[in-house]
Amino acid sequence: MTAYKAPLQDMRFVLHEVLDATSHFARLGRDDLTAEIVDAVLEEGAKFNEGVLAPLNRSGDEEGIHFENGEVKTPEGFPEAYQQFCENGWASMTGSEEFGGQGFPVSMAAPFQEMMMSANLSFRVYTGLTDGAVFALNMHGSDELKNTYLPKMVSGEWTGTMCLTEPHAGTDLALLRTKAEPQADGSYAISGTKIFISGGEQDMTDNIVHLVLARLPDAPPGVKGISLFLVPKVLEDGSRNPAVCGSIEHKMGIKAAATCVMNFDNAKGWLVGTENRGLACMFTMMNDARFQVGLQGLGVAEMAYQGAVEYAIDRLQSRSLSGPKAPEKAADPIIVHPDVRRMLLTQKTLVEGCRILAYEAAQYLDMEQHHPDAEEREKAAVRAALLIPVVKSFLTDMSAEAANLGMQVYGGHGFIREWGMEQLVRDGRITQIYEGTNGIQALDLMRRKVMGDQGAELAKLQDEIDALCEANDLHESLREQVAALTSVNAHWRKLAQDIIKRAADNPEEIGACATDFLNFSSYVLLAYGWLRMALTAQKNIDEKSGDQDFYQGKLASSRFYFERILPRAELHRQVLQTSADNLFGLTAEQFVRH
Amino acid sequence: MTAYKAPLQDMRFVLHEVLDATSHFARLGRDDLTAEIVDAVLEEGAKFNEGVLAPLNRSGDEEGIHFENGEVKTPEGFPEAYQQFCENGWASMTGSEEFGGQGFPVSMAAPFQEMMMSANLSFRVYTGLTDGAVFALNMHGSDELKNTYLPKMVSGEWTGTMCLTEPHAGTDLALLRTKAEPQADGSYAISGTKIFISGGEQDMTDNIVHLVLARLPDAPPGVKGISLFLVPKVLEDGSRNPAVCGSIEHKMGIKAAATCVMNFDNAKGWLVGTENRGLACMFTMMNDARFQVGLQGLGVAEMAYQGAVEYAIDRLQSRSLSGPKAPEKAADPIIVHPDVRRMLLTQKTLVEGCRILAYEAAQYLDMEQHHPDAEEREKAAVRAALLIPVVKSFLTDMSAEAANLGMQVYGGHGFIREWGMEQLVRDGRITQIYEGTNGIQALDLMRRKVMGDQGAELAKLQDEIDALCEANDLHESLREQVAALTSVNAHWRKLAQDIIKRAADNPEEIGACATDFLNFSSYVLLAYGWLRMALTAQKNIDEKSGDQDFYQGKLASSRFYFERILPRAELHRQVLQTSADNLFGLTAEQFVRH
Repeated sequence: MTAYKAPLQDMRFVLHEVLDATSHFARLGRDDLTAEIVDAVLEEGAKFNEGVLAPLNRSGDEEGIHFENGEVKTPEGFPEAYQQFCENGWASMTGSEEFGGQGFPVSMAAPFQEMMMSANLSFRVYTGLTDGAVFALNMHGSDELKNTYLPKMVSGEWTGTMCLTEPHAGTDLALLRTKAEPQADGSYAISGTKIFISGGEQDMTDNIVHLVLARLPDAPPGVKGISLFLVPKVLEDGSRNPAVCGSIEHKMGIKAAATCVMNFDNAKGWLVGTENRGLACMFTMMNDARFQVGLQGLGVAEMAYQGAVEYAIDRLQSRSLSGPKAPEKAADPIIVHPDVRRMLLTQKTLVEGCRILAYEAAQYLDMEQHHPDAEEREKAAVRAALLIPVVKSFLTDMSAEAANLGMQVYGGHGFIREWGMEQLVRDGRITQIYEGTNGIQALDLMRRKVMGDQGAELAKLQDEIDALCEANDLHESLREQVAALTSVNAHWRKLAQDIIKRAADNPEEIGACATDFLNFSSYVLLAYGWLRMALTAQKNIDEKSGDQDFYQGKLASSRFYFERILPRAELHRQVLQTSADNLFGLTAEQFVRH
Repeated sequence: MTAYKAPLQDMRFVLHEVLDATSHFARLGRDDLTAEIVDAVLEEGAKFNEGVLAPLNRSGDEEGIHFENGEVKTPEGFPEAYQQFCENGWASMTGSEEFGGQGFPVSMAAPFQEMMMSANLSFRVYTGLTDGAVFALNMHGSDELKNTYLPKMVSGEWTGTMCLTEPHAGTDLALLRTKAEPQADGSYAISGTKIFISGGEQDMTDNIVHLVLARLPDAPPGVKGISLFLVPKVLEDGSRNPAVCGSIEHKMGIKAAATCVMNFDNAKGWLVGTENRGLACMFTMMNDARFQVGLQGLGVAEMAYQGAVEYAIDRLQSRSLSGPKAPEKAADPIIVHPDVRRMLLTQKTLVEGCRILAYEAAQYLDMEQHHPDAEEREKAAVRAALLIPVVKSFLTDMSAEAANLGMQVYGGHGFIREWGMEQLVRDGRITQIYEGTNGIQALDLMRRKVMGDQGAELAKLQDEIDALCEANDLHESLREQVAALTSVNAHWRKLAQDIIKRAADNPEEIGACATDFLNFSSYVLLAYGWLRMALTAQKNIDEKSGDQDFYQGKLASSRFYFERILPRAELHRQVLQTSADNLFGLTAEQFVRH
């Protein structure tokens, strides 16, 4: 099994050289986040993830979760690692300083979080939801709730969960039935069953703070009748709240993460935010939560890439068709074979292209949350909203591709558990599903984010891409890449406008175009990221500054991306030019086998 | 969990209406295989697979294999099901009549085999390798070996294995080290370790017949020094041969199939075929073995499709964007949503397109093996050789896509084991790897099958496609599909010729083009299959004969394939126009993270 190595050089390249993180932090009024601080966090983060979390990944998968009488036992080493996670201050990175957190912007924490996803996705599931719960509570909770719960959640002493899904209500939260009855003391009695609750029960902390969506007795039907409640596992007087794990799910992957059925049986809870506005409260943290799932995809893909590269260099099998490359060995290392290189370069260019996309999206989230100027906050919020469904969905889809390519590089060994590659395929698979399936992300992009403003924000982004291309169209070595991006960006504009028109006539076009439009958009965005990376690399090569090998690798990778990956956009464009009618030619019955 | 239902209507449609199975069997001199017989086998096969094998699929996955002291215990119900498999005559379907088999041609057995893949892939692994071993032994074994082993292998009383891979020798069999020392009695003492041996040990039969590749003491190095040996678990005198299972692999999927490390420690064996020609002996059965793996992909994909359709009809979630479709219910069934239909139709058109491709390839295998005319046998052999890498590789890749789409349709439930969908993803994943990874299949297609005769056989196939298009280019309702196939077929010709030329200058182009060329070819072949299915359906609609709903569904599916799937070919075409150079821009070291 390959040992995880945090890709620090690549992270630093993206943060400092392409996205100019320190200037970005300065614009947020965070001059304290200097390049040295950023790098120190990366270095320490690498140590923690490589040394503490990564070694528990295989064993956690093998051991899984023990469940008995409502109690969950996490795998060996998890509680101790969690302790260390809190003691080292990793739990409190993003928490507000008011409640003892370090107040890091999203883009400051993201590289560390990405490392966690690579090192041990199951472990991250416990801590990631706490971040989400803290976010929602901080934004919408009463001062009393915040003072009672946030300090311990920010420090990591207590974890948090998000309780949304019910057996009959997943994507469609309008259908949810969990009830909240007002009590004389101002609290509510919460009753109902929630499923798929990550970390709903665990043995790492003394208390767990559930954020639960439920309906008040007089609530209107549908999504406008949903309120948000805080329901702790242990009440302030030390008594056990009847919010109990009824069973755990047996899953394909992330087996060290407890996925719980939670039974609330007149559990005591408190309203968060205003009545019937629970969904809005949840949605404020949705961008962050979805961003985190995108990072999960990125982290898993990075790990799969590292494993595949190591194996491809070590494994000797067959000779190169252009003559032996390692004649002193029994066979050539398989990294000499072009089809293996195709797989490795596909992984590499997807991972690195997605990394810049994610880190840039994080900067927009930062600006939305922390920019001193309200207008800038609003502008950033609109951009973040546009990018987030792409980050969640494309990064997790590409992750599945990268993990499966990694497995393919390993051949038969890829299917064997001890080699670790198949775990990445299994663990990462959930990221395409949870926090809204990728199909739902695509609908969100198409319907809310593009149709929502008739393509206005998208056009701004497309203008930025054109501006980059125009500023660099005489750049000799990258001229072809500039031309390709210019062309695909023009197609993007046309497609968006075309779909907006068609959808006005037939609303089914929205859903019919959603996934292909998201994919098309993603490949353009990755090309935009790759061109910027290539320009930066070329500049360093021209100036003979820095690690020339690294920059040469970037240039060669960018070429690969433009020549062998970007053509995928054309496939989606062709599909997007067809009508929704071709999806509605069969009755439901005509799908069924006889 | 969805109960498996054999897709009999679709199988009959392909066999009788499109591929005219009875005329095909008649050409082989098998007038006895009438349409009634074919249908009876399908019906009985459906009962066995739906009633006996499918119910053991989930339980087999949960229980897995027990291993202790060299003994394997298969999951509960497997030995009894195997007994029934033999008693019902399913084991002996393809075995030669001389040794008690029924002598069914490949295409006669293929639908039943496909059902097994859908119902219980792990179970099939045990029996599929016996078929391969029977095939090789029948072709190359001495009369004595055949008389001793074949009757019991054909009846299923004994199973067979294929022992090729060693820890350091997978794709590259030239590296294998297992030794065979000649003994005074004419036998050989076999010593070495083989890995990934499916069914290397089990508790369903009294004996297991291993076919083992090994080297004679004076053998030349490389693939020209490999011989094939028959090594039974139990010798004729009833004593135990030291061919022992040392351990079993813990795998991602097919957990009910025992994947064994086999230790041969001076085990007694007999030469099969001539010395140093072992690889050639193995290769005679390679086409059938690879065809079977393609069928495995098809079966898994079919099952995933059935599950997804059932779930999409049952699951109520959200309203259609064009207004409620089931206003009497709490929400619409998700099959009304276009993005869900996109997923289901992708599964459906891939599965059905691949079914005709597989069944037609089976007819070429039949003709290769059974046609009375030697010239026809040779012609068929060349065509089968061309199609087999496509069948093995594309059907298994599409299977992974179909299974993952099925999981996506299930949303969160897709990740939970009890729903069965994630098992299909895990089980099917091995098919992309074993019997030669799909990358190796692509190389085989490009190098041996296309470059091998400078594209001659491929051109014949392309001529047949053009002939179909020309004969139907005035067919009004399908004119666009005919035009699309004509166009993509012309591209196919041009690409092949172009790659052959480039490869003459740079042999790395072979590997650089292999996977994209295989994918391009596959989408053309599926279009060819879909056009024939659509023409048949249209004819029945024009004549108002048969199940009009079924034919309408076929026409609508064909339109979907041509409009939303075939554009993938264009992506591969664009990639194929780039140079191999874009794969060689990085040194091995430049791939490594720092």
